[in-house]
Amino acid sequence: MPISLAHNNYGKSQIRLLKLRRQPDRHDIKDLTLDIRFEGDFESCYLYGDNTRILPTDTIKNTAYAFAKLYSIEHIEEFGRTLAEHFLTDNPQISKVRVKIAENVWNRVPYGAKPHASTFMAAGGQQRTATITATREGVSIQAGIENLDLMRTAGAGFENYIHDPFTTLPEMEERVLTTTAKVEWTYSQNDIPFGAYWHGACEALIQTFIEHESKSAQHTLYAMGNAVLERYEEISEISIAMPAKHCVLVDLSPFGLDNNNEVFVPAEEPYATIEATVRREEGEEADELM
Amino acid sequence: MPISLAHNNYGKSQIRLLKLRRQPDRHDIKDLTLDIRFEGDFESCYLYGDNTRILPTDTIKNTAYAFAKLYSIEHIEEFGRTLAEHFLTDNPQISKVRVKIAENVWNRVPYGAKPHASTFMAAGGQQRTATITATREGVSIQAGIENLDLMRTAGAGFENYIHDPFTTLPEMEERVLTTTAKVEWTYSQNDIPFGAYWHGACEALIQTFIEHESKSAQHTLYAMGNAVLERYEEISEISIAMPAKHCVLVDLSPFGLDNNNEVFVPAEEPYATIEATVRREEGEEADELM
Amino acid sequence: MPISLAHNNYGKSQIRLLKLRRQPDRHDIKDLTLDIRFEGDFESCYLYGDNTRILPTDTIKNTAYAFAKLYSIEHIEEFGRTLAEHFLTDNPQISKVRVKIAENVWNRVPYGAKPHASTFMAAGGQQRTATITATREGVSIQAGIENLDLMRTAGAGFENYIHDPFTTLPEMEERVLTTTAKVEWTYSQNDIPFGAYWHGACEALIQTFIEHESKSAQHTLYAMGNAVLERYEEISEISIAMPAKHCVLVDLSPFGLDNNNEVFVPAEEPYATIEATVRREEGEEADELM
Amino acid sequence: MPISLAHNNYGKSQIRLLKLRRQPDRHDIKDLTLDIRFEGDFESCYLYGDNTRILPTDTIKNTAYAFAKLYSIEHIEEFGRTLAEHFLTDNPQISKVRVKIAENVWNRVPYGAKPHASTFMAAGGQQRTATITATREGVSIQAGIENLDLMRTAGAGFENYIHDPFTTLPEMEERVLTTTAKVEWTYSQNDIPFGAYWHGACEALIQTFIEHESKSAQHTLYAMGNAVLERYEEISEISIAMPAKHCVLVDLSPFGLDNNNEVFVPAEEPYATIEATVRREEGEEADELM
Repeated sequence: MPISLAHNNYGKSQIRLLKLRRQPDRHDIKDLTLDIRFEGDFESCYLYGDNTRILPTDTIKNTAYAFAKLYSIEHIEEFGRTLAEHFLTDNPQISKVRVKIAENVWNRVPYGAKPHASTFMAAGGQQRTATITATREGVSIQAGIENLDLMRTAGAGFENYIHDPFTTLPEMEERVLTTTAKVEWTYSQNDIPFGAYWHGACEALIQTFIEHESKSAQHTLYAMGNAVLERYEEISEISIAMPAKHCVLVDLSPFGLDNNNEVFVPAEEPYATIEATVRREEGEEADELM
Repeated sequence: MPISLAHNNYGKSQIRLLKLRRQPDRHDIKDLTLDIRFEGDFESCYLYGDNTRILPTDTIKNTAYAFAKLYSIEHIEEFGRTLAEHFLTDNPQISKVRVKIAENVWNRVPYGAKPHASTFMAAGGQQRTATITATREGVSIQAGIENLDLMRTAGAGFENYIHDPFTTLPEMEERVLTTTAKVEWTYSQNDIPFGAYWHGACEALIQTFIEHESKSAQHTLYAMGNAVLERYEEISEISIAMPAKHCVLVDLSPFGLDNNNEVFVPAEEPYATIEATVRREEGEEADELM
Repeated sequence: MPISLAHNNYGKSQIRLLKLRRQPDRHDIKDLTLDIRFEGDFESCYLYGDNTRILPTDTIKNTAYAFAKLYSIEHIEEFGRTLAEHFLTDNPQISKVRVKIAENVWNRVPYGAKPHASTFMAAGGQQRTATITATREGVSIQAGIENLDLMRTAGAGFENYIHDPFTTLPEMEERVLTTTAKVEWTYSQNDIPFGAYWHGACEALIQTFIEHESKSAQHTLYAMGNAVLERYEEISEISIAMPAKHCVLVDLSPFGLDNNNEVFVPAEEPYATIEATVRREEGEEADELM
Repeated sequence: MPISLAHNNYGKSQIRLLKLRRQPDRHDIKDLTLDIRFEGDFESCYLYGDNTRILPTDTIKNTAYAFAKLYSIEHIEEFGRTLAEHFLTDNPQISKVRVKIAENVWNRVPYGAKPHASTFMAAGGQQRTATITATREGVSIQAGIENLDLMRTAGAGFENYIHDPFTTLPEMEERVLTTTAKVEWTYSQNDIPFGAYWHGACEALIQTFIEHESKSAQHTLYAMGNAVLERYEEISEISIAMPAKHCVLVDLSPFGLDNNNEVFVPAEEPYATIEATVRREEGEEADELM
């Protein structure tokens, strides 16, 4: 009873891809995760280590990036089909291609009467939070928001930073700024219309993220905290953690394509961590604290 | 140089709580996760195993459940304060109580011109999906939605099932039905207005989840699949996985309180899995397939 | 072209189960997660809401618990087969039962020359950690361990705690103590044989977890911290977080079975959090600090 | 009451790093995750968008990679200290550096009487699994292992694959092969000494992973499956999923350093997926099946 290869498939999973389409009046984004699998005549690879029939999974990934530049992704169904047919056409050893695409839904942030042209919020698991600390001396109430996913594709740069022998980052006049913010503020009074203030504080945070002329994540973080303190006198302090998730520009030059801030890999790790507390000074007491 | 206890705190984390308020014209829900911590004079517990100063974390949990029955949770800030002050009042050994509450945001599902009275959708990470399978014979396109969090607090029951020696579940005329659905349908043609069909199929799924007189999760799953097939001739088959996450009714009778379907624990595990495929029969061919 | 039910299956997923077998000279444990699925003649349930063919998934779960009491789980293959055949025998409408069991591997902790009789360590993702904090004044070095999964099935109790109107927890002379500890200690010098000290500190922590006559998690946490400080003069302070994951005793009385600390549900949430820092006092300065 | 910046810190989190030290008689590996944070005089950055005091987090990451090449990582405490002191020395605006390092523990795989020189197994959450499928016709038993983390640093290559216009991957005579394998095999009989067979099958899998002259992941996967089928006649079929997690070689040339397969980034995504089933042919029946 001989042993043989029954089923097999191979491919690339968790290919992350952000396509940014810069139109005159607005930006469109598509945030995709692709899983591409091949079946076909690969027996000699498994049995004898013959790689001449293997299209490397690294090339599968590169192809997805290049096609994101070359083709529209208005409908993931059509983009997937274009990819699948490409692999089938060029590789006679492949009998079946399966392309699975999951699109993370990002909505335009409301801005005045209409949606904003280049700022987006993920359909994510935002949570409203509250922390109550009670001692024999009194009660302190903090409120906040977690998992606030925001992305901004225009008006944010990062330039004129320190260069040392380990610097490779290019100066960026324009970059994609994306974060999953966690914010917590402290009330100086306890008889607050909590619901209304929570919505108002979130609105101030998001409004500032949209409008701020961002020179760095630190710069925008401070402006966001400042906006909340200026809107509500009863908020004495606000802490913001704004990890910057990196959208890495893909190098398409090996394929004879330019990439003018269009195709990115949204990377999970590493990420930059930016945390700060912005506080209202309170006369003499504050001086002592500082 | 003696050794001593410096800081310490203890408490209960990840207390899950669903409060359902049945008003005449609508249901309101609050879905909370609490983390409650105590600091105070607990040195004798750590050094000598003296438990007479310890309020067990199991009691902390019970208190959160009972207070969810006794008090309003309109604002998590006020509910947290009520809890914190209770522990401080009754336990002289405690110097500081910290209550942290995270509220999972559920929105009412739109229903005609206005939001529905008793059906909710989580602000979760819904994903639009597509699977393209290409072979030398042709291309098959599937579309779908993942992470569709739905909850329905009225009009769903589960009765008249099999009873055997291991049955302890009570028959339920009314129960909270909550699921994270994953749905995938197959197009019989490839020149579809994919975006419009995707939105229409999702609408049919949700509309049916709202309206169906549910006798079981199986019963509602079939009705949802059927609704999509009836709306679009070009969809030949639909597969739905609808895990039922259990909302366990809390027994408040030890505290002299009744619980008329008001306070639940939304449990992560175990959960019921319900999966089925609903298909359009296609004359003779279909007979052969079956 | 009529619409019909094609495939379907239902069942219970993520059924957690800890079986403790108390032998004269040692305890044996099995920590399982079960997923049980049925296929069969369920069309009338899907189409007409007829539940008379449905064995509720709650009963499936109860059966797994009861069978854990009634049968050996030496081999998960045989335990799964016994369960599968039971459902098939008693339910003519079921044509196929699939039982999938995953066993979390726990190893006996070494104790002197041989493995300990009732203390176990999970084959988990333990991590060695270090935190270096450098300022213009000097460098402080901390080392630690994360994801240290420990379970002890004998010699731990919890009694004589506070009882209030919300207490339902019974006093426990014997209980299963299980935790995923996170520990970090601070060196008072920086020229330490770091590897040897790390192994020695971990050994002291585990040895104490084994031997301590535990009256509470707080009590054992302090003893563990104290043991590390006593072993190494160069460690000035140790912080331990020891969340107690609850093993909930299953009520088997509805099935006419007793449960003498044999069958538990290891619950993910809620869990008790216990955190403390144990410190070496350093003369007058220390007095001031306290 | 003016508003001001209170606390702040920034840095890079989840910097992944694999250091491979190729000694004449054995390979040593260190698998680290770093989190590096700065505090200091950064007020002008937050308030005025002045970036001249900011060392970009991208440079922080590059420095960690370069130092992994330049310095020993025998003790993470000393490596962290070297990094922390570097940043403090070169950046007067920084007052405090905190370097947190978590080391994932990899153990050498036993090989005959002693540990193997270049094959490692993670201290991960391996699970033993069983799947029992019972129908009216009979019972089928499968057993398996999940979360089997393996890494091999010598003797694996990947060459002579297809090159197309999207190829950028260099041919590799030597590469680091790392996977989290999931394996399931089917018994052709049901009265097996399940425990002994499970250990024996795992041993055959690991032994083959060590010894096989690997020309590709597919090639090694088949050899592993074949080894299990050859050891046990009672196993009729084995399915192996062996996702290849990529260890990306870091380009250190911008810093004037070469990287001779020493410093890698172990990437979480994307990853290659390789799945296959190896089966024992059973005479005429098998012919029909194929």
